[in-house]
Amino acid sequence: MRDVAVIGIGCTKFGELWDKSFRSLFVEAGTMAIADAEISGEQIDEMFVGNMSAGRFVGQEHVGALIADYSGFATANIPATRVEAACASGGLAFRQAFTAVASGLADVVVAAGVEKMNDVGVEETTDVLAAAADREWEGIAGVTFPGLYAMIARDYMNRYGLTREQLAMVAVKNHDNGQFNPNAQFPSKITIDTVLNSSLVADPLRLFDCSPVTDGAAAVILCPLDRAREFTDTPIKVLASSQASSSIALHDRADISTLDATVAAGNRAFEMSKLQRSDIDFVEVHDCFTIAELCAIEDLGFCKKGEAGKLTEDGETALHGKLPVNTSGGLKSCGHPVGATGVKQIYEIVTQLRGDAGKRQIDADIGMTHNVGGTGATVVCNILGRV
Amino acid sequence: MRDVAVIGIGCTKFGELWDKSFRSLFVEAGTMAIADAEISGEQIDEMFVGNMSAGRFVGQEHVGALIADYSGFATANIPATRVEAACASGGLAFRQAFTAVASGLADVVVAAGVEKMNDVGVEETTDVLAAAADREWEGIAGVTFPGLYAMIARDYMNRYGLTREQLAMVAVKNHDNGQFNPNAQFPSKITIDTVLNSSLVADPLRLFDCSPVTDGAAAVILCPLDRAREFTDTPIKVLASSQASSSIALHDRADISTLDATVAAGNRAFEMSKLQRSDIDFVEVHDCFTIAELCAIEDLGFCKKGEAGKLTEDGETALHGKLPVNTSGGLKSCGHPVGATGVKQIYEIVTQLRGDAGKRQIDADIGMTHNVGGTGATVVCNILGRV
Repeated sequence: MRDVAVIGIGCTKFGELWDKSFRSLFVEAGTMAIADAEISGEQIDEMFVGNMSAGRFVGQEHVGALIADYSGFATANIPATRVEAACASGGLAFRQAFTAVASGLADVVVAAGVEKMNDVGVEETTDVLAAAADREWEGIAGVTFPGLYAMIARDYMNRYGLTREQLAMVAVKNHDNGQFNPNAQFPSKITIDTVLNSSLVADPLRLFDCSPVTDGAAAVILCPLDRAREFTDTPIKVLASSQASSSIALHDRADISTLDATVAAGNRAFEMSKLQRSDIDFVEVHDCFTIAELCAIEDLGFCKKGEAGKLTEDGETALHGKLPVNTSGGLKSCGHPVGATGVKQIYEIVTQLRGDAGKRQIDADIGMTHNVGGTGATVVCNILGRV
Repeated sequence: MRDVAVIGIGCTKFGELWDKSFRSLFVEAGTMAIADAEISGEQIDEMFVGNMSAGRFVGQEHVGALIADYSGFATANIPATRVEAACASGGLAFRQAFTAVASGLADVVVAAGVEKMNDVGVEETTDVLAAAADREWEGIAGVTFPGLYAMIARDYMNRYGLTREQLAMVAVKNHDNGQFNPNAQFPSKITIDTVLNSSLVADPLRLFDCSPVTDGAAAVILCPLDRAREFTDTPIKVLASSQASSSIALHDRADISTLDATVAAGNRAFEMSKLQRSDIDFVEVHDCFTIAELCAIEDLGFCKKGEAGKLTEDGETALHGKLPVNTSGGLKSCGHPVGATGVKQIYEIVTQLRGDAGKRQIDADIGMTHNVGGTGATVVCNILGRV
């Protein structure tokens, strides 16, 4: 297997983008990544696209070919593959692109993610997102995604003594970071009271515990590390890319507030990279709900179970804390276009490692991503580092 | 890159399977493949699942994790990835599984495909399948898939003098083969008159020019060639696996009756395998409509453009002809569960190369598959051979 580097990145503004189409969003992110890598389209060998549900959001399947076409790659007949694992679809795209380059089958490969969620009504969106859970045993019973994560939150609070205020601090911290991210959907500071006074969605989760419904796209370009300096002075090496699955339904887990697929994918990433937890300078985790960030920090092994709330309260996961978590603003403030999020996490890590993060810049050599599908039936982790 | 072999295969009966669910179909095929390879589930490292539109057919996305879970692999947290390129989704699953093994990232990998198409009504099915085309420029204009292939057929007939009877002979030949396939949806002989007297669907295509709407699943297991004899006495080597894209919309092609992605994927497969066309003993091509089989034979380079009708009429593509095409019965007689077809093609090649094809057995050492998404915006080719 060959060493692999990221040589180009692109990301659209995230938000309710009424003036942009599904395909135009992707082209915008892809064009930015190509320009960033100072590469020509003819040099692209293959493409992987993460997308959860264009079939229902915009009536379009066969998304890989569509996007290759609208990116101008159809004339070269490059392979274009859509991958899907609900909200971890972007992470899968990155991992498959990594595999294609590492294997030697392709040299220059695009990994992208895109979702256009606002073109259908809110009830339809809720039902589409419920397709990430077990339709026959969860969706049909009427449980929504906030409902599933609310069960996780309630279980966690009962077992570990997490306070409602500590949970709110996750959202407050992520908005503190997101205010410095020009791509963020909600780049505004909030307070603990903002969270506590927001509408109840699924007890104990309130509106400001939940990531929003978002349109957006992100794209990155990978190539063999030994070719990376043809394209960029600041290649970022992929130190690990790992993936794990678990039961699709929450009720089949041995422990609903420990995501065993996060544990497995995290352990695999550390094994593959031969790194320790202490080597990681910052991490982008999948905070689809505030409780999810706390579980992620613990399940990745950065602290013991039950301690992530205190860690957050003590500011250790803040922008200039000991382990900055979600410098991008996370899914909460930056937004969560479900198929794009896993690639946007890579975009954030590379932006930070290049020193291009502006007002949210931290001092870091190695960063990690953690992307979740459903309630943890799929998890993808990546570790990237400066060369 | 490592050499890769197929060590186990499974396939359900294809048809209108009212008594089987989406997930039970997959488990049936997967269990057959595992039993066939005489392997235990714990030895599986990773899984790829081809599926076009479970999101719309059965309200379920996140299909990779669902299937890993119901196959009993969730406890081992194996990576499970759904890939999608409309009717070429199964082909993608096989190619990604091949890449995972070839790269060295995984040893024993399942490639599967599944589709449950009959749980929604026929109008919904037509609309779901239209999502394989360009929704904004084709679907919205009201053109259906039979409509698109009818344009290809009319163009081809005008340019190359193909007769309506020659077109019918493709269906007759595939039903001749399918009658010997115990998994076929329609294992019945038909005549040219059956085709010519069937309902007009989209001029010039009639009902018996069209592949049916089908429920079904297929699964195969791959591992490094040098480990294959741990599991089977008859490993089948993967000699090539290639993929290409083209414009999503038919009107953007330079020539609508030549599928340029078939030409590209075919050429890449021959380059990768270092084989000649004359080395191929038989081929499973994507006969979603009769015209598609003729285009495929030509675009893969087995004869000149415009000659495949005559080749069919002369019996050269028949079961014991010079180049048997679709010994399984093809999509026409065997059925076309869209996400499963690409894997079923591999199942047929391996079955023939092992000498297990019963009454449809031919004498062959090397076989090829050709799997198409949409009207040719994605094409996957594979070449497999006896060791």
